[in-house]
Amino acid sequence: MFTLYFSKGSSALAPHILLEEIGADYKADERSIPQGAHLTTEFLAVNPKGRVPALLTPDGIITENPAILWYIGEAFPEAELLPTDLYSRARIQELNAYICSTAHVAFAHKGRGQRWSDDPAVIEGMKAKVADNLRECATLVETQYLTGRWALGDTYSISDPYLFLLHRWMKQADLDIAEFPKLNAHRKSMLARDGTMAALSQHGI
Amino acid sequence: MFTLYFSKGSSALAPHILLEEIGADYKADERSIPQGAHLTTEFLAVNPKGRVPALLTPDGIITENPAILWYIGEAFPEAELLPTDLYSRARIQELNAYICSTAHVAFAHKGRGQRWSDDPAVIEGMKAKVADNLRECATLVETQYLTGRWALGDTYSISDPYLFLLHRWMKQADLDIAEFPKLNAHRKSMLARDGTMAALSQHGI
Ligand SMILES: N[C@@H](CCC(=O)N[C@@H](CS)C(=O)NCC(=O)O)C(=O)O
Ligand SMILES: N[C@@H](CCC(=O)N[C@@H](CS)C(=O)NCC(=O)O)C(=O)O
Repeated sequence: MFTLYFSKGSSALAPHILLEEIGADYKADERSIPQGAHLTTEFLAVNPKGRVPALLTPDGIITENPAILWYIGEAFPEAELLPTDLYSRARIQELNAYICSTAHVAFAHKGRGQRWSDDPAVIEGMKAKVADNLRECATLVETQYLTGRWALGDTYSISDPYLFLLHRWMKQADLDIAEFPKLNAHRKSMLARDGTMAALSQHGI
Repeated sequence: MFTLYFSKGSSALAPHILLEEIGADYKADERSIPQGAHLTTEFLAVNPKGRVPALLTPDGIITENPAILWYIGEAFPEAELLPTDLYSRARIQELNAYICSTAHVAFAHKGRGQRWSDDPAVIEGMKAKVADNLRECATLVETQYLTGRWALGDTYSISDPYLFLLHRWMKQADLDIAEFPKLNAHRKSMLARDGTMAALSQHGI
């Protein structure tokens, strides 16, 4: 039994989709970011970072999307969410690290600039380049991944629900996903899955 | 046979240490960032991101520190750089994702602000909070990891050379590592290893 701490519309959507996808026995525990529920003393004891997602497992808490997604992949081998050959595994980690450290971070400069500055003018100034940066991420993903229906080829993997977030970040930055045919097709493939739809509805999307 | 593309003093130091640590058969191929050698047409064909580290393996190129470190861990099981239990593996990924997306990104706001803005005043303004952010990272690592001599307890793992970078980023942000006793001890443990010293000397450090 797992508990996924999430906020609606946050990046916790990625592991949320994955848990639904595999029919895991889990509870979704909402900590609304708009309401500050991720910063209560009680939640900071669960995750001192004050962020979501966080996954409570029988062994302890796990934070950070790439770690949670990989853990789910390894904990449910029968779901075949992770390839066995080392290079394909590395490519999954590579894409996940890129989404985490480059795409998600690029998007965060739109609404979370206070992480990197206390000066309102600087925070405001950080917003101007967000769309360009996400366009660069989308271009890299189109050219380096999505060689088949899914992020890493012909098989759905833990990277797919994570890549699904990029579509959402692009939309929020007023980018037109139709300009990126592979990403657009990926979005449609994701929306055709029950696991995606079940998680989206829990996020009120 | 592997090729590690690196620039002296960059984050490529982490996989460089790991390759030395395990005595891997590899070649180090310098692409000096100060000289722009990471942005040549030839290197962009190797790594379209124009970044280091990049590891050329017999199966293809791998980028992103967490992916390269994990790949080395899986490719050299006899070096025992990765635990076998799923939760410990997730904790390694968690720490690596945090270093990649939070600590490294915090540090990059000091010298790489042009990633997130084209406005010189905004780029300059991004520097002010770097030390505070790295102090927060150091505090989180002290309280959540380093439960033994190494990042994840009593056993050296792929996270240790990556965490070693934090010491360097802290120094460059004028933070005193002596205020963080566990990180300070970790730094000393790292410096006592031949693999660390062999990589450092190739970086001219
Ligand atoms: N690197 C983390 C980032 C997590 C993160 O930034 N989560 C956001 C929601 S998408 C959050 O909790 N923000 C709340 C805040 O910044 O106060 C991961 O990949 O899980
Ligand atoms: N997320 C990447 C970051 C790689 C990165 O930013 N590398 C820096 C050196 S530490 C670089 O190549 N910078 C060159 C540039 O920004 O032009 C990783 O973890 O490998």
